[in-house]
Amino acid sequence: MNPTLKKMTIVAERVLKDKLIRLIREEGATGYTLIAVEGEGSRGVRASEFEGRNVQIETIVGPETAQRVFDQLAERFLEAYAVIAYTSDVEVLRGTKFVRDSPANSDS
Amino acid sequence: MNPTLKKMTIVAERVLKDKLIRLIREEGATGYTLIAVEGEGSRGVRASEFEGRNVQIETIVGPETAQRVFDQLAERFLEAYAVIAYTSDVEVLRGTKFVRDSPANSDS
Amino acid sequence: MNPTLKKMTIVAERVLKDKLIRLIREEGATGYTLIAVEGEGSRGVRASEFEGRNVQIETIVGPETAQRVFDQLAERFLEAYAVIAYTSDVEVLRGTKFVRDSPANSDS
Repeated sequence: MNPTLKKMTIVAERVLKDKLIRLIREEGATGYTLIAVEGEGSRGVRASEFEGRNVQIETIVGPETAQRVFDQLAERFLEAYAVIAYTSDVEVLRGTKFVRDSPANSDS
Repeated sequence: MNPTLKKMTIVAERVLKDKLIRLIREEGATGYTLIAVEGEGSRGVRASEFEGRNVQIETIVGPETAQRVFDQLAERFLEAYAVIAYTSDVEVLRGTKFVRDSPANSDS
Repeated sequence: MNPTLKKMTIVAERVLKDKLIRLIREEGATGYTLIAVEGEGSRGVRASEFEGRNVQIETIVGPETAQRVFDQLAERFLEAYAVIAYTSDVEVLRGTKFVRDSPANSDS
């Protein structure tokens, strides 16, 4: 059984890395992946010379965790920082271990 | 409200980076993320020794922009270069800022 | 025509890179992308100091290939290693070249 979960991606200035990791952990993420990225956006995530100045955080979570992280990001980060966050549906191999927030699974 | 938009991913030789960024900008993307990647494919995106010789461009756009970029890639790049492009649906936190090409949003 | 295919993402210790590439090739993937990542999870994919110690393998495949890779990962890797694997639906520009495992396309 490979449940459908949410892949959440957060792109932000690297200085926010630890704060964002703490946030997703507190809201229920059991793990995460970090990728060094460059970017340019409407709010100042700037492309320098492709040296990895921003960080992309990817985590597999249940939908409740995803929503709570969205809420927290909106409340605490979006005004002051250039942060992009989005989710997509993913089918996860043996995905139950990624979900703390429901005893069985979370997409129903 | 977190609208459903398209995440477009383009993988190409690094020499195409500026051309591809210009293309997505011209077609309506408000920002993008760059990731250094290695790859190997049927058309010659080759894996050297994992040093980041290719570039993966990720951008959040409305469906009209996504389609126009697809069209331009097919017309101008696919024959001559090893380019991979795909889209997936994403739910974007405060996503309206990512869409230039419709006054409200774009997934309807 | 841009068929709907599967984007498969595998995150693992870098030492597994060649084994995993061989696996996805054998099961029908025509190419792949490698990204150096850091991560931390419930099973020991650890964040060191953000130096890219893990590898994220991304490949576009048909659903049959995706399922076979899932099966192989579960059988051969999940017990012994910290491996994360998931798929999502993607619309691929001229995607037919990515599918070996069916003469036309694979999402039907």
